[in-house]
Amino acid sequence: MTDDFPRAGADAREPPAVAVVGAETPGNVGTIARSMKNFGFESLLLVDPPPLDPDGEAYGYAGQAREDVLPNATEIAFDQLVTEYHTIGCTAVPNEDDRSHVRYPFSTPAELAERLPTVDASTALVFGRERVGLHNDELERMDEVCAIPANPAYPVLNLGQAATVTLYELRELALETTQLPDVERTRAPEPAIERCVERWQALLAAINHPDEKRAKATRLFRRVLGRADPTEREVRTLTGILRRATERPDLRDGDGEP
Amino acid sequence: MTDDFPRAGADAREPPAVAVVGAETPGNVGTIARSMKNFGFESLLLVDPPPLDPDGEAYGYAGQAREDVLPNATEIAFDQLVTEYHTIGCTAVPNEDDRSHVRYPFSTPAELAERLPTVDASTALVFGRERVGLHNDELERMDEVCAIPANPAYPVLNLGQAATVTLYELRELALETTQLPDVERTRAPEPAIERCVERWQALLAAINHPDEKRAKATRLFRRVLGRADPTEREVRTLTGILRRATERPDLRDGDGEP
Repeated sequence: MTDDFPRAGADAREPPAVAVVGAETPGNVGTIARSMKNFGFESLLLVDPPPLDPDGEAYGYAGQAREDVLPNATEIAFDQLVTEYHTIGCTAVPNEDDRSHVRYPFSTPAELAERLPTVDASTALVFGRERVGLHNDELERMDEVCAIPANPAYPVLNLGQAATVTLYELRELALETTQLPDVERTRAPEPAIERCVERWQALLAAINHPDEKRAKATRLFRRVLGRADPTEREVRTLTGILRRATERPDLRDGDGEP
Repeated sequence: MTDDFPRAGADAREPPAVAVVGAETPGNVGTIARSMKNFGFESLLLVDPPPLDPDGEAYGYAGQAREDVLPNATEIAFDQLVTEYHTIGCTAVPNEDDRSHVRYPFSTPAELAERLPTVDASTALVFGRERVGLHNDELERMDEVCAIPANPAYPVLNLGQAATVTLYELRELALETTQLPDVERTRAPEPAIERCVERWQALLAAINHPDEKRAKATRLFRRVLGRADPTEREVRTLTGILRRATERPDLRDGDGEP
C-alpha cells in the first residue's frame, strides 16, 4: 500500500551528499538536516560551519535529524570537496548565456532528477552561504550548476528553502518509498461506479426528470464522479443514498405524505 | 530568452491564496511570505497569527516580501476561510485508505499543479500550525487534502519547508516566466558539433591512432559531447583547441622539437 518507485541504479549506489559552504546561521544547518531526513538523504558535509551547539538552534531546527544526520555531519575543506565529489553548485542567479561558463549552462532540480540516476560517482549538492550564495571562484570549480526556477523579480530563495526544494525534487535518488499510500489502487472499481450511475438514472426516472434531459444529466453525473476519482466507500455511500432517495421508504412505510 | 510557459487559465484568474492557521513562530510566517514572493504568490491569509512586529523575526525572515506580501497579509477567521475559498488542506500524514475521509483521498503538490489550472474559483492552500499541523476538525472542513511525498520514517516537514515545496510545485499558477534563460535554444547547432567531431578525427589521424580504433574513439567523443549539450561557445573552443593540437604550430614555427 505504499507509493513504490524503483530505486535509482544499484543498491550499492549512495544518494548524493549535501554540502553547505560557509553557512553563518546554525538554524539553517538544522533546517537543511531536517529536510535531508524528510527526503532520505544522509550525508551532510560542512565547509567552514558555524558552531553547532547541541543545545542551540541547529539542533532545535533539525527535528528528528538531530539523532543522525546532524551529529553525523562531516566537516570538510572546500578543496577536498571538489576533489573527491562530482560537485553540483546551486545558485539562484545563473548566467544568461554562454559568454561566461561560471554559472552556465545549468540544470533545474527536475532535470537533475532525470539525469543523476545514471551517474555512478560520489555526488555532492553544494549550497552556499546566506545572502551571497556560492562565490564565483567556488562555482568555477564545480562540475555542474543547478538553479531553481523562480520569480524573475525575486529569485533568491532562503538557503534552507533552496536546499529543501532541491532535495524534494531529488527524493527518488534517496527514497525507495514514501509515506503516501497508493491512491490509484484504491479508486472505486468501474462496476461500482456503473451501479452508482444506474442508481442516478433510476432516480431521474422516479422524479420524472424530462425524458429528453436524462441522457445529459446522466453524462454530467458520470463526469463529476469520474473527475473526482472516488474511493469505493464514497461510491457505495452515494449509491445507497441515491437508492433511498429513489425508493423513499420514509414515504412508503407510513400513511403520511410529507 | 526567458523560460516561458503559458499562464494558467485566463489572465483575470488569481493564483491561489496561502492561508496559515495558528502559526506560533513569527519567523515561519516570514519564511512563507518570502517563498510566496519567490514563486509569485501574493495573497497571504492568517488565521490566529502570532504578533508580527515590523522589527521582529517575521520581517527579518521575509526578505523582499517584507515590502508587499507580509504587510499586505490579511487576518481572517477560520469560518470565513472555509466559506469563501476552495480550501486545500496540507498535511504530512494522510489516511492510508478510505476508512476515514478526513485525510483521504489526497493529492500531491505535483498532482495539484496538473489539475488546479482548470478550477476557476478562489482557492486557498491551507497550512497548519507547527508541530501538529491542521487539526482533524479543521481538515474535515477542507474541500481537498494535499500531502508531500517524503520519507516514511520521517515525513513531517517543518511548516516553512512544506509551504515552500508546495508553492514551488504550483509556481506555474502564479508566474508567467522564471529568472532562468532557456538552455535548449542555446545548445550548439549541429553543424558546429559536426565540425568539432571532424577535428577530433583529424587529430586521431595526426597522432597515428590505430586505424581500427578510430571509429570507436570518434563515437565515444560524439557521445560525450552529445550528452553534455554543449553551448556554441564550448564547441567552438574545443574545435579550436583540437585544430591547434593537430597542427601544433608551436612545433612547426620554430626548429625545436620538444
